[in-house]
Amino acid sequence: MSDIKKLKLLDSNIKKFDGILSLLSFDQETLMPKEALDERAEYISLIALKHHELFSSDELYDLLISLKSRDNYKKLSLLNKAYVNNFFEEVEKKRKIPSSFVEEFSKLQGKSFGVWEKAKLEDDYDSFKPYLEKLVDYSKRKAAFINPDIDPYDVLLQEFEKGLSVEKLDEVFIPLKEELVSLLSKVKKSSLYGKEKFLPSVDLNAQKEISLKIASLILGDKKNWVLSESEHPFSTTISPNDIRITTKYSDDPFFSLTSTAHEAGHGLYEMNLGKNLRGTFLHQAAGLGVHESQSRFWENHVVKSKSFWSNFYDDYAKICNLDLSKEDFYLSLNRVQPSFIRIKADELTYGLHVIIRYELERDLINGKLSVENLKDAWNKKYEEYLGVKVEKDSDGILQDVHWSHAYFGYFPTYLIGSIYSALIYDTLCSKNDNIDKEISNLDFSFIRTWLKHNIHSHGSTLGPEELIKYACGEGLTYKNYVEYLNKKYKELYDL
Amino acid sequence: MSDIKKLKLLDSNIKKFDGILSLLSFDQETLMPKEALDERAEYISLIALKHHELFSSDELYDLLISLKSRDNYKKLSLLNKAYVNNFFEEVEKKRKIPSSFVEEFSKLQGKSFGVWEKAKLEDDYDSFKPYLEKLVDYSKRKAAFINPDIDPYDVLLQEFEKGLSVEKLDEVFIPLKEELVSLLSKVKKSSLYGKEKFLPSVDLNAQKEISLKIASLILGDKKNWVLSESEHPFSTTISPNDIRITTKYSDDPFFSLTSTAHEAGHGLYEMNLGKNLRGTFLHQAAGLGVHESQSRFWENHVVKSKSFWSNFYDDYAKICNLDLSKEDFYLSLNRVQPSFIRIKADELTYGLHVIIRYELERDLINGKLSVENLKDAWNKKYEEYLGVKVEKDSDGILQDVHWSHAYFGYFPTYLIGSIYSALIYDTLCSKNDNIDKEISNLDFSFIRTWLKHNIHSHGSTLGPEELIKYACGEGLTYKNYVEYLNKKYKELYDL
Repeated sequence: MSDIKKLKLLDSNIKKFDGILSLLSFDQETLMPKEALDERAEYISLIALKHHELFSSDELYDLLISLKSRDNYKKLSLLNKAYVNNFFEEVEKKRKIPSSFVEEFSKLQGKSFGVWEKAKLEDDYDSFKPYLEKLVDYSKRKAAFINPDIDPYDVLLQEFEKGLSVEKLDEVFIPLKEELVSLLSKVKKSSLYGKEKFLPSVDLNAQKEISLKIASLILGDKKNWVLSESEHPFSTTISPNDIRITTKYSDDPFFSLTSTAHEAGHGLYEMNLGKNLRGTFLHQAAGLGVHESQSRFWENHVVKSKSFWSNFYDDYAKICNLDLSKEDFYLSLNRVQPSFIRIKADELTYGLHVIIRYELERDLINGKLSVENLKDAWNKKYEEYLGVKVEKDSDGILQDVHWSHAYFGYFPTYLIGSIYSALIYDTLCSKNDNIDKEISNLDFSFIRTWLKHNIHSHGSTLGPEELIKYACGEGLTYKNYVEYLNKKYKELYDL
Repeated sequence: MSDIKKLKLLDSNIKKFDGILSLLSFDQETLMPKEALDERAEYISLIALKHHELFSSDELYDLLISLKSRDNYKKLSLLNKAYVNNFFEEVEKKRKIPSSFVEEFSKLQGKSFGVWEKAKLEDDYDSFKPYLEKLVDYSKRKAAFINPDIDPYDVLLQEFEKGLSVEKLDEVFIPLKEELVSLLSKVKKSSLYGKEKFLPSVDLNAQKEISLKIASLILGDKKNWVLSESEHPFSTTISPNDIRITTKYSDDPFFSLTSTAHEAGHGLYEMNLGKNLRGTFLHQAAGLGVHESQSRFWENHVVKSKSFWSNFYDDYAKICNLDLSKEDFYLSLNRVQPSFIRIKADELTYGLHVIIRYELERDLINGKLSVENLKDAWNKKYEEYLGVKVEKDSDGILQDVHWSHAYFGYFPTYLIGSIYSALIYDTLCSKNDNIDKEISNLDFSFIRTWLKHNIHSHGSTLGPEELIKYACGEGLTYKNYVEYLNKKYKELYDL
């Protein structure tokens, strides 16, 4: 067997363990009785260990080294070259971090998550602070293992989105922040602001019917996906023909509506990853930012758009038994309301929530801000950017789970997603004059085909920004996003 | 670490792989998109391989050998002695069968299943015949590997229920057959026979509500179980606190009703396996016959009993919107109707379906009947015992999946289950004069507690018949079962 075949055989088993881990987690969040939590954690550990044994095996490393030797490398196809390089990069990075450190860090993360959960519940930041300090310290040490020659926060950013750096983000997020603050201030002065009608509660079965409709519109009728229910919506891939998305039906009918569109956007990306990449390391998204661009695209540019509701609203109002004009509904769906909670934020203020976290963790990891001063800095920024005064740490510094897992560098990808989605929407419009009309007609064939060929099918053969440049002709720029928001809210709030 | 601790550590990982395999299959049957079948089969193979590697490892075998050495063995507790002996027996048995044979046989089974599926669909027994011949041959060879000194069918029987033999079964099944045939003939002469009212179709949501109620009555409110939907009802254990049962809601409302009770009976057994046995080889049912006694008990002695409906019927009729008297409903639920299909058979004729299969496979494996003559023998017995003339092989010899998997020796456990369930019911009545009254009141506390302490909690520390003798004072006897049926049908059909 050739080395590349041996590599693919090993890799396909890694991918199988990935899929099994996804199923164990999906089932845990959607169906598993809560009492089975401990046993489930043990199952996950066992499979994670099997996955780790393969990923860190000398057999895999030696194969990759052999394939990268000049004589072997030059015989590889272009695709296999990308495959070997990407895979090697990741394997080598993992091997730089000592196992004992990984184990200690993992225990710290587990413990910290528990402490954070309790601290949030009891609104007690002080109990979490010492853990946060340790998490920051371990994250810096991890970054130093991977690359001691660049700023640690840059290393961490690249764990979630290759090629990202503070330099790049500052260039985009600083002017974007100004734009968002300025637009928010204009909206607040609108005579419509604060007078949006609220949507009455909608029967849960009607919500389910709508969610299934939305998911089918995005993911297609071909049944290689499943829509389930969980406390927090998510999407996951069990295998290439088995995409799972979840939502939550609640008092707020917008939540199941928009989260279904969001998760279906993620799901469509996974569903369309190139068939030629199956079973290999390249059969994954280019990065979390690009992944988020897909969910944001369907959530914001499609399902929260005026075009989408122009025809669909009559059906929707009938199914949900609504007595609200289309215009009132649309304004209500998109209403701006600065608040404390990121995951419930409107489209306009959402970016500010992310930028606050970015600025804080950037300074935290790069040593310009201490955990001691973090809470004050958080509260100050919320007042400054969003005009809201944090009263409870559970609504403030304790709000998100990410830091308890030491996911420093993750937050920026949420906003990169929105930025890229605006760029993608503009590109689509430049390729097809009828995009809005097609959205009105719930005809997504052009959009789905374009996304598949230009974004999804490439997997991780290209880096994230490289992929966006390939598809849209431009990389990380805030301009399209700001133009899109200005246009949308100008019309909505009659600015 | 002591050897027994090392053994338990290894064993707990085997149990984890068991649980993961159960989840992979459960999800496949209940939620997985059909398109993902091939990948799912690969995931299952991978985990089955990991399971096999542990089970057949020299490390495990050497540990068991060491624990069985006189000096070590005498230091073990009684429970650990049973543990080591049972485990060793199973491991040694597996080691007697060459891996190459296991692999070949497994491929043959896979292939044969596909051929059988198609043959059944196309009503084409001839295409399946050569595979059936091979399956018989491989099964005999397997039996010879395990124990060449006894009849091969006895070896196969013991794969499903320890201690079983043709001698024992003939002693019970031959007189039982006469009794069933005679009782059926009496029922057929009843003036009520063939005049039972049919239940109208019941709304699927009402069926769901009823199934959930039934499952809760049997399994309890404590949420360590899940009720799902699948094409064919089954029960499975993901982990001790995670019991899954399924049913199917269809045009026949009796099906979801009785299958839910049936599967919940299986589930309750698994739920109540002794906590002290968790993570070990003993944490499993004593055998398939005992397992089936639990499902049959709840299905026939509880949910199909007159007592059960005496109070519950009013609720049921309301939820299902029924306009049928309690008496007509009860007769309809229990009506006797000889037919071709085992899984749709009534309680009285069910045993005859099983006995036919037993007699045929016994003679097939022990060389007294050829595959060539099997079909004629099948059809003849159906006419003789049940009075029905098989017109299509898909309703006859091709009806069941078992033989395509080479599950020879499995069928008898279905009837052993009914036999044991009657013995258990009589034992319960001898311990508590109010059993029927408690069933009327839907108060299952005594029954649940008795089953837990006398049957479930023992896992496989005792052999199946040994366990039943321990709990009921008697082993495999058909008398209680016949008395129970005679009494039930005498009353029902006014004999």
